[in-house]
Amino acid sequence: MGATTETRREQANAEALHRLVTAEPVLVDIRPAIEVVPGMTPETILTSGAPMPWERYTGGQRSAVIGGALYEGLAADAADADAKLRDGHIKLGACHDHACVGSLAGIYTASMPVFVVENREHGNVAYCNSFEGPSRKRLNYGVYDEEVRASLEFLQEVAAPVLQAALRRVEGGIPLRPLIRRALNMGDELHSRNAAATLLFTRELVPHLLDVAEELPEQTRRCVSFMADNDYFFLRLSMAYAKATADAARGVEGSTVVTAMAFSCQEFAIRTSGTGDEWFRAPLPQVEAKYFVGHGPQDAEFMGGESIINETVGLGGFAQAAAFPLQDYQGGSPEQMVKANLEMYEITAGEHPQLRIPSLAFRGTPIGIDVARVVETGITPVMDIGVAGKGGGQIGAGVLRAPLACFEQALERLDG
Amino acid sequence: MGATTETRREQANAEALHRLVTAEPVLVDIRPAIEVVPGMTPETILTSGAPMPWERYTGGQRSAVIGGALYEGLAADAADADAKLRDGHIKLGACHDHACVGSLAGIYTASMPVFVVENREHGNVAYCNSFEGPSRKRLNYGVYDEEVRASLEFLQEVAAPVLQAALRRVEGGIPLRPLIRRALNMGDELHSRNAAATLLFTRELVPHLLDVAEELPEQTRRCVSFMADNDYFFLRLSMAYAKATADAARGVEGSTVVTAMAFSCQEFAIRTSGTGDEWFRAPLPQVEAKYFVGHGPQDAEFMGGESIINETVGLGGFAQAAAFPLQDYQGGSPEQMVKANLEMYEITAGEHPQLRIPSLAFRGTPIGIDVARVVETGITPVMDIGVAGKGGGQIGAGVLRAPLACFEQALERLDG
Repeated sequence: MGATTETRREQANAEALHRLVTAEPVLVDIRPAIEVVPGMTPETILTSGAPMPWERYTGGQRSAVIGGALYEGLAADAADADAKLRDGHIKLGACHDHACVGSLAGIYTASMPVFVVENREHGNVAYCNSFEGPSRKRLNYGVYDEEVRASLEFLQEVAAPVLQAALRRVEGGIPLRPLIRRALNMGDELHSRNAAATLLFTRELVPHLLDVAEELPEQTRRCVSFMADNDYFFLRLSMAYAKATADAARGVEGSTVVTAMAFSCQEFAIRTSGTGDEWFRAPLPQVEAKYFVGHGPQDAEFMGGESIINETVGLGGFAQAAAFPLQDYQGGSPEQMVKANLEMYEITAGEHPQLRIPSLAFRGTPIGIDVARVVETGITPVMDIGVAGKGGGQIGAGVLRAPLACFEQALERLDG
Repeated sequence: MGATTETRREQANAEALHRLVTAEPVLVDIRPAIEVVPGMTPETILTSGAPMPWERYTGGQRSAVIGGALYEGLAADAADADAKLRDGHIKLGACHDHACVGSLAGIYTASMPVFVVENREHGNVAYCNSFEGPSRKRLNYGVYDEEVRASLEFLQEVAAPVLQAALRRVEGGIPLRPLIRRALNMGDELHSRNAAATLLFTRELVPHLLDVAEELPEQTRRCVSFMADNDYFFLRLSMAYAKATADAARGVEGSTVVTAMAFSCQEFAIRTSGTGDEWFRAPLPQVEAKYFVGHGPQDAEFMGGESIINETVGLGGFAQAAAFPLQDYQGGSPEQMVKANLEMYEITAGEHPQLRIPSLAFRGTPIGIDVARVVETGITPVMDIGVAGKGGGQIGAGVLRAPLACFEQALERLDG
């Protein structure tokens, strides 16, 4: 690579970084996907990962898509859903192509409520559906039964109307970066730990919930109880924040900065700013996980996942040193967490000027993964993830490293 | 000291430690001091520190006591208050002798609402009045004017009735140790940082506040707003927790474990488990502080302070390594905070089995300050404190070390 190319790349990456750190995502609403998600149709189901033909979806992710079809009333039973997914009657889409991001299997159907997050600085909008609740059985972990249906109905019929009424009372919406900034001071890295952000978000809503309670007393009590019981509630808001941020950095010619990372049940894949919507794919990596009692590595199964959009914008594994309590949940020691976090500065274009890590003397989070640096150093992104089990459900949590191959492919394309 | 004495002391300290770590403080109510505080009379004013004759109180602490007299309607003006304090018409008492602890000047008068915290394991009860609000002008920082009066009236007439109604709806009260345990995972050390604990406490109350709002709609909204704006709100609950805990360890014959530490405007003083209610006094130490803009060391003034009851039970400076965000507020670096925190294990009788510090690989907090170890090592307790300014008001925050002399005196008495 010549000096001029290098300068051009540096400039392109500076622009991508600038867009990442100046993003101002603001939560403004929660609405049914069909009303707001671009390209959504009544027959669309979105799922996580670089898209593949329906036949390649297996295990929990396949079950989750079929579960979505049943929940939405698009099919009479699993066989019917399978047939309709084969013949295109039900349209399978990739979350990332619809300004959405999926947690694990990441199922979106038309009627599901989604948080609406506007990037006030750059004008783009991102969406994320809601955390399903504390049960290990969830649609996004590949399970669909009466319990899961009840959880999804609760979100749609009880929680969403209350949250919508409260959010619409908040003048100008709720800016998410200030909440994330504070949560980083309170033990969250905003991927596997969202306990503080959930509390901070709840506090923002409480005055408005007092008003909503006058109209919807019973629903408001149930919604408050749901949020109080779910330290993970904010995860979907941090994901929508991250998607709104990352999307703003798309399309900078020549930039080697990563704009998306995603799992499907078969592959890990990335996109970069300079290569548009092309996915660079690699085989699934190894997980180092801490399993819930009664489970082990033999039970683990990949079933998709795009919550690593948070790592893409410098949260999660890239802010591990802000979240030492995670050593209990996903294993590791404070020293290992600091070491992994510090490594991420080797592969990123810069540091976030507002989002800072207290244990690193308030150093800004490493942000803007540069595929050129990843390939040069051989250091790949570290990611905090929930681990799904064969047959569905969450069975643990862990840390994993992205596979190098997709970064090499992306760099080759960018160099080409 | 002979081997038998040593064994006896070890046994005594083990008993004191056992009482400290098994305490189960539960918040059950908020009521006017006159209704619940032992020995309180309509003419009593409590203040911080080992007691002294009225004439020795100077500066902000003196102003605060006089302010308390005016607020309570015990005197027509400052001169009248001074005269009545001199002749005993107004009775000046020490908070610690009334199961209370005072923040800074620590003024309690008969009508002020106090949190009621029962130690379910040991049967004793402790009390603490409420945080006055975010203004730098507060009675406990030595200021009394119309603004301060309005804050105190707000607590008495708006916040206390709402909190009382909410607390009385909580079956069995609110156990405080679980909230403190979680807050230590969320960047609080529960003295200079109570942001997470305040949020966690608020979350416990929200369902009940929805009910209270039906009866007291306007007051509930004002109370919720007060709690939302005050990250320090929980400090008084952590102090009542600490007092309920420390008092349980009083009176173990031969124990060298500290049961109270307190500042007045003139002295630092401690009590130990084996020496009853005697105070061991020493001159005031030096403060290392970070001052608010426009202030410096020349403006600092001691005006009392018993929030260091939190350090007495292993919080505050003894859990600094849980609260790296404090480097911004009170100075220091993460490394200095870890170092100071680790030193405290050299002078304590044990570690708390439930309350743990994430950055120290979940090591239990050091608890049970042993005057024998303090004297042997020359290491004195580290304390996170707010710094008051001459003329009143908070002007900064800092870290200080207790003076050695009072530990030497206590050990001499215990050895004697």
